Amino acid sequence: MPTGNITVLGLGAMGSAVAARLRATGYATTVWNRTAAKTQPHTAAGSNAAATVPDAVDAGDIVIVVLLDHRSVREHLEPAADRLRGKVVVNLTTTTPGEARATAAWAADHGIAYLDGAVMAVPSMIGTPEARLLYSGDENAYAIAEPALAALGGAEYSGADAGLASLKDTALLAAMDLMLLGQLQAVAMMRTVGVPAAETAGEAEAWLAAMLPHGKEIAAIIDGGAYDTGGQSVDFDRRGLASIVTASREQGVSAQLLEPHLRLLDELSATGRGASDWPRIIDRLTIPKQESR
Amino acid sequence: MPTGNITVLGLGAMGSAVAARLRATGYATTVWNRTAAKTQPHTAAGSNAAATVPDAVDAGDIVIVVLLDHRSVREHLEPAADRLRGKVVVNLTTTTPGEARATAAWAADHGIAYLDGAVMAVPSMIGTPEARLLYSGDENAYAIAEPALAALGGAEYSGADAGLASLKDTALLAAMDLMLLGQLQAVAMMRTVGVPAAETAGEAEAWLAAMLPHGKEIAAIIDGGAYDTGGQSVDFDRRGLASIVTASREQGVSAQLLEPHLRLLDELSATGRGASDWPRIIDRLTIPKQESR
Ligand SMILES: NC(=O)c1ccc[n+]([C@@H]2O[C@H](COP(=O)([O-])OP(=O)(O)OC[C@H]3O[C@@H](n4cnc5c(N)ncnc54)[C@H](OP(=O)(O)O)[C@@H]3O)[C@@H](O)[C@H]2O)c1
Ligand SMILES: NC(=O)c1ccc[n+]([C@@H]2O[C@H](COP(=O)([O-])OP(=O)(O)OC[C@H]3O[C@@H](n4cnc5c(N)ncnc54)[C@H](OP(=O)(O)O)[C@@H]3O)[C@@H](O)[C@H]2O)c1
Repeated sequence: MPTGNITVLGLGAMGSAVAARLRATGYATTVWNRTAAKTQPHTAAGSNAAATVPDAVDAGDIVIVVLLDHRSVREHLEPAADRLRGKVVVNLTTTTPGEARATAAWAADHGIAYLDGAVMAVPSMIGTPEARLLYSGDENAYAIAEPALAALGGAEYSGADAGLASLKDTALLAAMDLMLLGQLQAVAMMRTVGVPAAETAGEAEAWLAAMLPHGKEIAAIIDGGAYDTGGQSVDFDRRGLASIVTASREQGVSAQLLEPHLRLLDELSATGRGASDWPRIIDRLTIPKQESR
Repeated sequence: MPTGNITVLGLGAMGSAVAARLRATGYATTVWNRTAAKTQPHTAAGSNAAATVPDAVDAGDIVIVVLLDHRSVREHLEPAADRLRGKVVVNLTTTTPGEARATAAWAADHGIAYLDGAVMAVPSMIGTPEARLLYSGDENAYAIAEPALAALGGAEYSGADAGLASLKDTALLAAMDLMLLGQLQAVAMMRTVGVPAAETAGEAEAWLAAMLPHGKEIAAIIDGGAYDTGGQSVDFDRRGLASIVTASREQGVSAQLLEPHLRLLDELSATGRGASDWPRIIDRLTIPKQESR
């Protein structure tokens, strides 16, 4: 039986899964939810319910927060700052890196050991090895919370910058989003000749799995930084992409998902870099920083 | 030793690989190239060279065309139309579906059996099972050419509409393009905290491989057509994507590659479809057809 009392703030789909899993692992748990009725199944299963956030916080050594967003987190943690002093707070609510850093700074000001988490899983996966949870922030907080966090799924500590977990999460989600949009674009194009979405998705899945390793070659070009390997150039890629865009439009399917890529290639070509390796477009994704100091 | 004489028009990187492979398989080959000097290594290896397209055409039962683009193909085939009558023409030059259909119509007018091809391979892959070549158009032409085409790599016949090979090729390339851009976006975001591109690409590769099968679930929703499964809704996806976009911009990385997706979700939400399954955005990719007749 693990030692330590754990408080869970928020009993939506994700918070409920987290509380249930900790309870099943043997932790003494105290739960709180804005809408109090949602505590009922948890008390029936052996958790304590607290009527207010400060009371809930007092009952736990580790406070896990699973609310809707950054605003709801700050709304409920700020009034309880004094009661949180000396405790470990693990915030699993989805936030941006900047929001995570802001909450970490606030926590540091109040003597709270703060860990920001990003949940790469749906609630039903919590407690299985398929669930992947990223953490960043206070390293001691991670050391203290780690045994409990390990019960939720695969736990990875990314570093002391509290924004890292969210950054890595959103970067991987961005990659997934564009991959799924790519399948959607292919499906839309093939539907114009009556091919069912399922057939195209199956074909695309096999094709994309075979093409995935090319990402590493592109990465090597980017890390190299010279963009002169003589592989596919901006102008070569531009011609290929223009032909994809034309094919799509000919079939009556908008190419709007592909147009930003074409625009980036056009910009490079127009500024004399048509012979560069095409991954050079990454330079144009980086917004120049204001001169600091 | 296979029978039949094959003519190859165009000895760029791809045409040369095709001619060399057919020769190695034992076909009698006749080659032509605009810049005649490029025929030299081929004649040295046993091919015949023709000085003009009509002469080249006369020497072959099957004429394989591997020029730069649609324009160069029509420029050289049109004057030889009479000499091509009764022959099989296989056009491996990259074209759009509309261009392929236009050439097929022209060929039909001149009694030429026309097959349009799309090469999903680089020249060094020609002749290996990794090379994948799609064909569409005249079914008899495919039956005649198939033994020779099988020497080039995996051959797939998509159907009588000559545009199908190009359509499937460009649809799969569109999917690949967006997948690679997704990895690029992740790389750009993680570089802002000093993570090398190779590290992010490695992580993204594993993550995307695990997420690829979700494409089939999306396809099932699209084929269902009701967009009411109660899975991830437009509004849910919108909030998640907005948070990715914000995270990217906070780090100084443009979110322009993701913005078209957000725009499509915004449009659906603004027209009262925020509760629909998010793959409904595919409807907005389809450009409404002009009322016909
Ligand atoms: N579900 C997933 O698949 C998933 C995956 C990864 C990450 N997440 C993240 O996990 C967090 C929770 O998601 P969920 O799926 O559990 O959402 P949910 O089922 O909609 O639950 C939302 C929770 O937040 C509470 N809440 C909302 N606004 C509040 C406020 N102003 N003050 C106090 N409490 C408030 C709700 O309380 P009431 O009961 O009183 O409304 C409820 O407990 C989100 O940040 C989400 O992005 C979810
Ligand atoms: N290379 C690949 O990885 C690859 C992959 C898939 C598909 N393809 C497609 O295969 C086709 C050929 O590509 P490639 O890589 O072989 O290109 P390439 O090496 O640049 O060769 C181009 C060929 O087209 C000829 N050509 C260009 N304009 C011409 C014109 N107006 N009249 C007559 N001939 C002309 C060139 O003749 P000269 O020698 O006289 O210039 C040369 O034979 C393209 O449609 C390409 O999209 C290539």
